Amino acid sequence: MRNYIVLLVLLNFLFLSCNANQNDSKNLSGNENEIHPKLILTKKGVEEIRSHLGKLPLFDASLEKVKQEVDQEIELGIQVPIPKDYSGGYTHERHKRNFLMIQKAGVLYQILQDDKYGNYVKDMLFAYAKMYPTLPIHPKPRSYARGKLFWQCLNDSNWLVYASQGYDCIYNFLSEEERSVLENDLFKPFADYISIQNPQFFNRVHNHSTWGNAAVGMIALVMNDDALLDRALYGIKNAALASNAKDNDGGFIKNKEGKAGYFANLEEPFSPDGYYTEGPYYQRYAMYPFLIFAEALQNVKPEYEVFKFKNNVLLNSIDALLQLTDADGEFFPINDGQKGMSYYSRELVTAVDVAYAYGGNNSGLLSIAEKQQKVTLDDAGLAVALAIKDGKATLFDKKSVNLSDGSKGDEGGVGILRYGEEDLTLVFKYAAQGLSHGHYDKLSFSLFEKGEEVLQDYGLARYVNVEQKGGGNYLKENKTWAKQTIAHNTVIQDEISHFQGKYEIGSKHHSELHFFNADNSDVQLISAKENNAYPGSKMHRTLAVVKDEKYTKPYVLDVFRITSDQPHQFDLPYYYFGQPISMNFDVNTSSSIQPLGSKNGYQHLWLEATGQGATTSQFTWLNHNKFYTISSNTSKQDELLFARIGANDPNFNLRNDPGFIIRRKNVKQTVFATVIESHGTYSPVSEFSVSATSNIKKVQVVYDSEEYTVVQITNVENEVKTLIISNRDTNNQTKHSLKVNNKEFSWVGPFYFK
Amino acid sequence: MRNYIVLLVLLNFLFLSCNANQNDSKNLSGNENEIHPKLILTKKGVEEIRSHLGKLPLFDASLEKVKQEVDQEIELGIQVPIPKDYSGGYTHERHKRNFLMIQKAGVLYQILQDDKYGNYVKDMLFAYAKMYPTLPIHPKPRSYARGKLFWQCLNDSNWLVYASQGYDCIYNFLSEEERSVLENDLFKPFADYISIQNPQFFNRVHNHSTWGNAAVGMIALVMNDDALLDRALYGIKNAALASNAKDNDGGFIKNKEGKAGYFANLEEPFSPDGYYTEGPYYQRYAMYPFLIFAEALQNVKPEYEVFKFKNNVLLNSIDALLQLTDADGEFFPINDGQKGMSYYSRELVTAVDVAYAYGGNNSGLLSIAEKQQKVTLDDAGLAVALAIKDGKATLFDKKSVNLSDGSKGDEGGVGILRYGEEDLTLVFKYAAQGLSHGHYDKLSFSLFEKGEEVLQDYGLARYVNVEQKGGGNYLKENKTWAKQTIAHNTVIQDEISHFQGKYEIGSKHHSELHFFNADNSDVQLISAKENNAYPGSKMHRTLAVVKDEKYTKPYVLDVFRITSDQPHQFDLPYYYFGQPISMNFDVNTSSSIQPLGSKNGYQHLWLEATGQGATTSQFTWLNHNKFYTISSNTSKQDELLFARIGANDPNFNLRNDPGFIIRRKNVKQTVFATVIESHGTYSPVSEFSVSATSNIKKVQVVYDSEEYTVVQITNVENEVKTLIISNRDTNNQTKHSLKVNNKEFSWVGPFYFK
Repeated sequence: MRNYIVLLVLLNFLFLSCNANQNDSKNLSGNENEIHPKLILTKKGVEEIRSHLGKLPLFDASLEKVKQEVDQEIELGIQVPIPKDYSGGYTHERHKRNFLMIQKAGVLYQILQDDKYGNYVKDMLFAYAKMYPTLPIHPKPRSYARGKLFWQCLNDSNWLVYASQGYDCIYNFLSEEERSVLENDLFKPFADYISIQNPQFFNRVHNHSTWGNAAVGMIALVMNDDALLDRALYGIKNAALASNAKDNDGGFIKNKEGKAGYFANLEEPFSPDGYYTEGPYYQRYAMYPFLIFAEALQNVKPEYEVFKFKNNVLLNSIDALLQLTDADGEFFPINDGQKGMSYYSRELVTAVDVAYAYGGNNSGLLSIAEKQQKVTLDDAGLAVALAIKDGKATLFDKKSVNLSDGSKGDEGGVGILRYGEEDLTLVFKYAAQGLSHGHYDKLSFSLFEKGEEVLQDYGLARYVNVEQKGGGNYLKENKTWAKQTIAHNTVIQDEISHFQGKYEIGSKHHSELHFFNADNSDVQLISAKENNAYPGSKMHRTLAVVKDEKYTKPYVLDVFRITSDQPHQFDLPYYYFGQPISMNFDVNTSSSIQPLGSKNGYQHLWLEATGQGATTSQFTWLNHNKFYTISSNTSKQDELLFARIGANDPNFNLRNDPGFIIRRKNVKQTVFATVIESHGTYSPVSEFSVSATSNIKKVQVVYDSEEYTVVQITNVENEVKTLIISNRDTNNQTKHSLKVNNKEFSWVGPFYFK
Repeated sequence: MRNYIVLLVLLNFLFLSCNANQNDSKNLSGNENEIHPKLILTKKGVEEIRSHLGKLPLFDASLEKVKQEVDQEIELGIQVPIPKDYSGGYTHERHKRNFLMIQKAGVLYQILQDDKYGNYVKDMLFAYAKMYPTLPIHPKPRSYARGKLFWQCLNDSNWLVYASQGYDCIYNFLSEEERSVLENDLFKPFADYISIQNPQFFNRVHNHSTWGNAAVGMIALVMNDDALLDRALYGIKNAALASNAKDNDGGFIKNKEGKAGYFANLEEPFSPDGYYTEGPYYQRYAMYPFLIFAEALQNVKPEYEVFKFKNNVLLNSIDALLQLTDADGEFFPINDGQKGMSYYSRELVTAVDVAYAYGGNNSGLLSIAEKQQKVTLDDAGLAVALAIKDGKATLFDKKSVNLSDGSKGDEGGVGILRYGEEDLTLVFKYAAQGLSHGHYDKLSFSLFEKGEEVLQDYGLARYVNVEQKGGGNYLKENKTWAKQTIAHNTVIQDEISHFQGKYEIGSKHHSELHFFNADNSDVQLISAKENNAYPGSKMHRTLAVVKDEKYTKPYVLDVFRITSDQPHQFDLPYYYFGQPISMNFDVNTSSSIQPLGSKNGYQHLWLEATGQGATTSQFTWLNHNKFYTISSNTSKQDELLFARIGANDPNFNLRNDPGFIIRRKNVKQTVFATVIESHGTYSPVSEFSVSATSNIKKVQVVYDSEEYTVVQITNVENEVKTLIISNRDTNNQTKHSLKVNNKEFSWVGPFYFK
């Protein structure tokens, strides 16, 4: 026995030496004895996981769910059809399901050590290896970078990111010969196709390329192919790309500095705060390849210290992404974002588990994992499940936060003001363009109450993976409506979108933070300026979330100041939901309705009614049994428009949501001062209404100059609150004093509120 | 000591004798020693309740909640303002709150034996007694029967129903002198005002009168005033009422047979099945006075055997009312019904507890009580709480049921087809007019999936107790829209409502059941005819709920047959919710939209788009992440209209919900055969769509005669199902045979489906 052990140790020593030698050589991919899995699951991780099986409820439940799903698929048999459909169609959905199964079955093979799963992955991969060498470019022509399995390289990359993981899991289950077939007939040509043969896809700074980079990088790590890894990390050298080429969304292919590859994608679109310039919906989508590849790189090549890159930007970005959710965990639909996507998505399960395991064990993340009721079936998921079992979870700290945009953090940003436990959450966008998925809405905001939209950002015009709706892809109305400024809660000048709705102009500019202050939870403010949306006009918006004891709930004070060198028309829309209840101004309806305009999104709004401004115009509505009121300083010259989305929409692609628009004509300089209150409730069961009317009597701009803007709110008990905004000086130490209507105000810093 | 006891026994004997003597006299109300409470809470009940305090979680929780509520109000102090507002306004809501408090504090006084509550009730009642003698008629003029505390006698009656209970609870807490003041200055004149001085309110068969009858009856029982009780039970003798007088809702004041009082109200509007002709929303409203007075009568005068009246109609009605709810417990909004009202309302807590305690302890009711998380603080509530604690609750049996309408059960009815655990619930209305709250929609239906509306009944046009909306009362649009036929899912001829929308005509007629069959849960049918809505035209609708293994979910087959002596235009609307996804026919939209018509409700529909019928026209929509499709047999001559509610609505009183209308012109005889499928789901988190397209290829009417109508459904796999309806003979034993397209069908009974 003793001799036997000695022999084993000796053999092991020899093997390690041999392995070390091989590490010096150029190509290791043929080595049957190399340690696998190593990418996401590790050999050590598998051992630990196996030792905890049956002991960690969250992990066991996640495993059981995956097992059921994969068993069902194995039952159905392998289907690898000739590609032909857009998203939503059969071949698209089947190949999508297949790559998810390859990854999941691979994991099951490792954790359960059951050859059934190994064989399933093997057979599936061989079916692909058989088809791939003769597969033409996908027949559907819509993409700027058509794939082979799917209509766009993006989805082919999804496939490879998942398939790499499955391959890693069964690597040692295969013979060297088998691996050679898979690598030569499938993986290598696949990686080349989405990179060298599609540089316009691979060599960009864009979420598409991130997927491409990660796909190539992960298969490179499994195959131990350093040249391929280099391509993934730094892009194709000297790719020939036209400087003005654009993708399907109208975004530029070539970025300013000509950088490419994974690190460029990590460097550029993320701000130091971890905000991803395209917005949270795409950040969520990009997070998976970013993180899964980072995890793989950390496991296989820790020397890159990928998680420390750019001051932990990957970890910061997960925190930022979680902050960019409402009370239900749904992402704010800034830019192109489909509503309903949330931290319950599989990408965020990965993100939360990776952030916990590789980011210093932040216990707040565990409470999110508990809500997700799922962990990844790997080392990171094990760590989370163990910590939860040990009772380490604490509440995730959602707070008011200002997230800078731009790779250096100097291109505007997104501010979030939160009151209480998301009783009121305000999202203010004063960011950069957001690449090709950006919308033209500087200084816009949206408002949430406990996870419910009060004032909405429309989001995108698309039904992702609903084939009947344009193959599940972006609809024409995304450009003609969703991206236009009028689709957002911000000011539109002369019915023209910011930057004329032109990407070339918009992508050169960003708004500027004026100040952000959330020190006092009862009076939180954010203020920003936009000076380039309309040449000759300057826009400055300040939003305050105020909790005043005389009000049942916190309210929003919105001060939008515009100065221009010429008279213009300014529209300020508020997209509410629900049933109009009352207004204190006269309204005219008509028995025939037309669109509000003919272009720039206005052609999609039905004009349902028109009112004439009162001194303080008030509009109350009821939504989901809550009463809300907008109170705004207006005059008889102002028009109050009731609009509904849906005109010129022959395919019923738009949601028919309502909007309330304050229109001010022929002014050079003006301030819109508006209070948005959530003030009451209705119960259809008790039939009681509580606080059904506004608590506000007047909203007035009592002073306005280049230096200061002063707004007063008078409540129904005639109590007055005054907000003074310092329009120039934002220094926290500056002492100010101002006399307004014979009253002297003195204060320190960029604002006064009392 | 012994002597002392003997003396006490002696005194007691003398007192009892004295009491017995008084029972023979005419007026007992002055007797300080009479046993109280006796009305709802009884002396014996109070003792039992007190012996169980702290032992019954549900009862204790209910008590604690009421205690908190009342303590808060006592804290605020008593406010009895001079009446001036409509519902929703301060004085209305305050007096409403007061009567609830009088009742609740009275109960607390008894159960907790704390004088604090006795004094609160006493002080409140005296504040009313001080105000009442000089109180003029309420200043708001809108009602046909104006109250004093409220704008209508109805609400004054509410007050007295509750106040009687409070008075009963503190009866013995008051001196004889105090009672005399309350009775002479408040209760007697109050009872006279709502009865003798308002016979047009009191002497009707109507839910209003039920409240009036119960109010007078309950105070009569407390005061032991037999003359007053007689008035409550049988109405005012020889009241002078004009035979054509109408109330605010357009209903007749005087009923056909001149009956009045509580028993007439119990006799007439309830069918033997317990269906209340106004519909469930008003049944719920009327239930409280019906039941609370029945309970009082049973407790004080059991000789009336009120619960046995008309074959237990009160108890049947509670069962019917519970059957008339969706999966969330919300009442189907037949006729004037406000959506959201449910069995969680206080009236239904009473109903469920009374039904349990006085109706033979049906254990299914306990599961509803568990959901309500509340019991009444009286003998009935105690019984429920005890039984729940003993684990006796079972699931309430919701089932397919056909409820007859009319006091004899021969005036049509309402049929409910349920599949599974309310996976699909179809509500078919072929009832009588439903008094003044009835809508003009014979043979209409609505459809629910797990408590969610799939095809809606609009309900009423009113915001109950939202003062800004017309004082919380019925809005003009209730008549111009909600009551009109076009507001419902049924056929409209020549854009004219059934019975010309005239109450005088509608109230003379009712539809007729053809057959109802729910024996096989996979093929359930209901069929009814309407021959009076349009003179010269006969309508016959058959609805089937079918579960076919080739379909993921059950579907509805709707066969609407019309024969007329002249050509007409027929419109068949389906009011769906959500986003249109696709249609298999061409649709034209326009850049300017008009109302669909100029009257009978059509003036309130915007015509958004028009399509031309295909052979089988299919329209798919998405709502709350579920896919639905309507497939209907049409031709090129048919128009398919996409409409939206909200035209000619200057005060934004209507909800802007969409509708899909099949329009067939210039036909004398036709069959609309339509399948409504719920077939798929979408997840915005996984972004997967499942079964997003219809399973149906064709819906055809292959044969139609006066004897038989034959409809065939062909699915996408070309499998055919055939429904044959026997249009004349509904005998279950009749043997039929029919040759259609060279195929022979033979069957027994009124329908064939295979």
